[in-house]
Amino acid sequence: MRKIVYLSALLASTTVTAQTPDSVFIRNIYNETLARGQSYEWLRQLTKQIGPRLSGSAGAQKAVDWSKDLMEKQGFDRVFLQEVMVPHWVRGAKEEAYIKSGKDRITVPIAALGGSVATPSKGIEAQVVEVKSLKELDELGAGRIKGKIVFFNRPMDPTKLNTFEAYGGAVDQRAGGATFAAKFGAVGTIVRSMASNPDDFPHTGSLRYGPGVPLIPAAAISTNGADKLSALLKQNPNLTFYFKQNCETLPDAKSYNVVAEIRGTERPDEIIVVGGHLDSWDLGEGAHDDGAGCVQSIEVLRVLKQLGYKPKRTLRAVMFMNEENGLKGGIGYADYAKKNNEKHIAAIESDNGGFTPRGFGLVGTPEQKAKVLQWKELLAPYGLHEIGPGGGGADIGPLAQSGTVLFGFKPDSQRYFDYHHTAADRFEAVSKRELELGAASMAAVMYLVDKYGL
Amino acid sequence: MRKIVYLSALLASTTVTAQTPDSVFIRNIYNETLARGQSYEWLRQLTKQIGPRLSGSAGAQKAVDWSKDLMEKQGFDRVFLQEVMVPHWVRGAKEEAYIKSGKDRITVPIAALGGSVATPSKGIEAQVVEVKSLKELDELGAGRIKGKIVFFNRPMDPTKLNTFEAYGGAVDQRAGGATFAAKFGAVGTIVRSMASNPDDFPHTGSLRYGPGVPLIPAAAISTNGADKLSALLKQNPNLTFYFKQNCETLPDAKSYNVVAEIRGTERPDEIIVVGGHLDSWDLGEGAHDDGAGCVQSIEVLRVLKQLGYKPKRTLRAVMFMNEENGLKGGIGYADYAKKNNEKHIAAIESDNGGFTPRGFGLVGTPEQKAKVLQWKELLAPYGLHEIGPGGGGADIGPLAQSGTVLFGFKPDSQRYFDYHHTAADRFEAVSKRELELGAASMAAVMYLVDKYGL
Repeated sequence: MRKIVYLSALLASTTVTAQTPDSVFIRNIYNETLARGQSYEWLRQLTKQIGPRLSGSAGAQKAVDWSKDLMEKQGFDRVFLQEVMVPHWVRGAKEEAYIKSGKDRITVPIAALGGSVATPSKGIEAQVVEVKSLKELDELGAGRIKGKIVFFNRPMDPTKLNTFEAYGGAVDQRAGGATFAAKFGAVGTIVRSMASNPDDFPHTGSLRYGPGVPLIPAAAISTNGADKLSALLKQNPNLTFYFKQNCETLPDAKSYNVVAEIRGTERPDEIIVVGGHLDSWDLGEGAHDDGAGCVQSIEVLRVLKQLGYKPKRTLRAVMFMNEENGLKGGIGYADYAKKNNEKHIAAIESDNGGFTPRGFGLVGTPEQKAKVLQWKELLAPYGLHEIGPGGGGADIGPLAQSGTVLFGFKPDSQRYFDYHHTAADRFEAVSKRELELGAASMAAVMYLVDKYGL
Repeated sequence: MRKIVYLSALLASTTVTAQTPDSVFIRNIYNETLARGQSYEWLRQLTKQIGPRLSGSAGAQKAVDWSKDLMEKQGFDRVFLQEVMVPHWVRGAKEEAYIKSGKDRITVPIAALGGSVATPSKGIEAQVVEVKSLKELDELGAGRIKGKIVFFNRPMDPTKLNTFEAYGGAVDQRAGGATFAAKFGAVGTIVRSMASNPDDFPHTGSLRYGPGVPLIPAAAISTNGADKLSALLKQNPNLTFYFKQNCETLPDAKSYNVVAEIRGTERPDEIIVVGGHLDSWDLGEGAHDDGAGCVQSIEVLRVLKQLGYKPKRTLRAVMFMNEENGLKGGIGYADYAKKNNEKHIAAIESDNGGFTPRGFGLVGTPEQKAKVLQWKELLAPYGLHEIGPGGGGADIGPLAQSGTVLFGFKPDSQRYFDYHHTAADRFEAVSKRELELGAASMAAVMYLVDKYGL
């Protein structure tokens, strides 16, 4: 791309639309964020100085301290902690796994699913039953499954445009597979990683054990590992799989949401929240999931303050704790709001990665959605064309019960499941400009909600 | 991001619109590309097995052979070469550069600009005049510039949403800086790299020497290097800069555009082109610029053929040669079309990187643009919201003179200038899904143009 000769054509065709006070203010939000934004440097600190932040870990506590300190340095009106009790699951020593076929031992990358029990200390070795769905187990029945390892191998559907839909179509294997397999006497489960593309990373994530069945160990296997296992099973249906994992659930731990506030000047009792979750899985640095959402949310308040904006309503940035394996922070935040008779008119969450903005998902009444859609022209120049479809966010979800309108920030989804819950979710995977544009997009929405209500 | 509880909300809000034969066919294009696409594997071959492909180089010739062979294997109706003579500039041994301030020698990364002359073999050392624009040289005059190295240090404007606009606002320094500085007796120029973010890569690119002034050597310095030089100049305005480069312009070389064709069934004399450029700068692998555009263009024809589509018009994929430093392929293609009385009704180019699709820039009459805008609803479900603004593409530009409608594929621009013309423009920087979505987007437009004309 040389673009010297043809640049004039590009510039000439840029649409010029009439300026309004809103369009000017939103332009200023983007200018401040893109020229003097802090979110990228903050993300570097959170990922490189602190790193993984699974609930109950020392990293999670460091992240609480760090974000409280950072918010206090910004000079917001109030910074406070909300205590919550969180699950405390630990991975222990790194997992081991191999496929044993004839004389061959082929090592494959696995990672225990969050919440899983350990294997016995000598590991588990058993024959493997490969299935593509939970339902298939019903058809096979206990006769074929008892004493074996169930291998769930249905990939994410690549033809879904939005990768979250593809994830939604496959994640039942991870969340419910162990319970389903245990009903039929399986001794363990191995789940194909929830990944959009072939890679060598096991993608962890939480499982849920249902009542009345034995708790069997469950692990994610990398997509390349899954393909290898499936191919070898076709050659030798009697091969065995060995795995050993050392995870453990400890007693619940004390932790915190971290909240910063700019007090409203006209209606301080009406609150607008922007947030992300501070906890992350333990394998990577939690950069896209969800360091990005955290630093973007603090940046939203910083930018509005820096521009001298005096909000009508009270604006909050919330660092939720424990989204990944319990949602105790999100639930606790809503409980706290209810107990204190706080009125939350809207909540914005960024938890789909720090990628280039596409729009916002909305949860609210048809009237509220219609009001938001009136802002489409103000947001379209910033690539925010998709306003409406999609949901809110896990942490802000519990607020919906009391009528809070939810805005789920919707960045481009194509790369999210290359990193999700893996060792690859590192600072280096985040683009500075994409991260900043997300922060500016959320600041623009917060400004409009504050100014016009909902 | 856990998304178990809230996923139902996401899915429930997916808009369902009525199906039409066009919407079904376009959906099939995306399904084929996303589930069984070949472009990513082809890009791996082009970048990893061939690598850099500057015009006139052995790499460029290999790329011609490779793409001709690949197209022939696809079973298209016709594959042919178009001979063009191209400039043949070579970098020679790697450049050296350092800042000499007092007793310190601080090495900085530079790269000769394409087309630049070499320094004398012992290099050049001189004092430095830092400026932010060509105009500033007029104000300083020869008295301040003669015998010195001019350092152009105006950054790309980070507040421009589209990074190509920011590039357009800074690239005059690279393209014209050497000529402008030579007028005032400068002995060389160092230009701040055209990069959106601070990095350690020199971003090369072409310069143009104007008539009547001495040809002085010109190099790009990394943005971090430029910041260091600027900071040191403030401390010590008398510091000197040393650089040595070994580049050379050899006699023009013979090269080729590579063209594949699916013959039209009703109006074979009407041609629709999709293309990218096969040449790349020498520092990286030319993955985003423009290996992506090449493999996407071949994929467009593959997918339409695979789906059994019988086009009314003749469809061509064109691998243009020499976009980067001469445009001889683009000019040659248009000349060839004119000489053969070929009627090109539309041309689509992908040369803005293999990133997630945003839309298409259009060049045509208001009536033609209005016709394209009628397809907006068919394209919007695929994230193609920005139809109209922006230009066509350098290689297809020369076709516009004979009334061809130009479609410039417009991917998201945020990351482009992290890689552009650097060693970082490697296969690993390309997302498989983003690349494939670009190919599908162009196939959708080619289908609509073929079916409905313009």
